[in-house]
Amino acid sequence: MASKRGQNMITVVAKNTIITEKYDEIIELCKELVEETRKEDGCIKYEMHQDVNDKAILTMIEEWESQEALDKHMQSEHFTRIVPLLGSLMAAETDMNVYAQLI
Amino acid sequence: MASKRGQNMITVVAKNTIITEKYDEIIELCKELVEETRKEDGCIKYEMHQDVNDKAILTMIEEWESQEALDKHMQSEHFTRIVPLLGSLMAAETDMNVYAQLI
Repeated sequence: MASKRGQNMITVVAKNTIITEKYDEIIELCKELVEETRKEDGCIKYEMHQDVNDKAILTMIEEWESQEALDKHMQSEHFTRIVPLLGSLMAAETDMNVYAQLI
Repeated sequence: MASKRGQNMITVVAKNTIITEKYDEIIELCKELVEETRKEDGCIKYEMHQDVNDKAILTMIEEWESQEALDKHMQSEHFTRIVPLLGSLMAAETDMNVYAQLI
C-alpha cells in the first residue's frame, strides 16, 4: 500500500445497508476485500466503518492516489469476485460517491 | 488541531446536496467552518469534498478523537452559528452518519 496524498487524490465513500442475518458472512468477505485492497498500488486508505447508531450500515471509506488507481482497483480479481457476492447480501443499493477535496 | 488516532476515534460523513445558485455563499461559510473547526481540541481531520460527477454534492468528512470531542464541536459557537445558515441553502436534508472503524 502506498501512502502518497496529492493533488489528484480521490476519496470514495460507499455506504451499504446490509441484511443483518448475513452479518458474519459479510464481515468475512469484507475482511478479505480490505486485506487484498490495501496491498494495491495507489491505495492510501481502505477502511470499513460501522454506524454507531445503526449496526446495519457498513461504509467503506477509501483514499486513492488517483482516479486511475481506483479504476484499476475496480478491475482487480478480488474486487470483481467479492463485490458481487457482497451485493447479494445487501438490503438496499450501495450509495457510492467519488470525491475530490475542495476545502 | 490534535492528531491522535485511537480506539475511541469517530468518523463523521455528512453528505449535503446544495442549491447550486448558492454555491459561492456556501463555500464562504464552509471555509470559515472548516478553519474554525480545525482549531478545536480532538479534531483529527475536517475536510470538505465535492463529488467529481455532481458538483452539487458537498460532503464533510471528519475524524474526531472521541464522541465527546464531536459533541463539544456541535455545541461550538461557529457550528451553532454557521450550520443553520448552511441548512437554509441546501436542496435536501443532510445525510449524516457517525462511524466507528470496524476493519
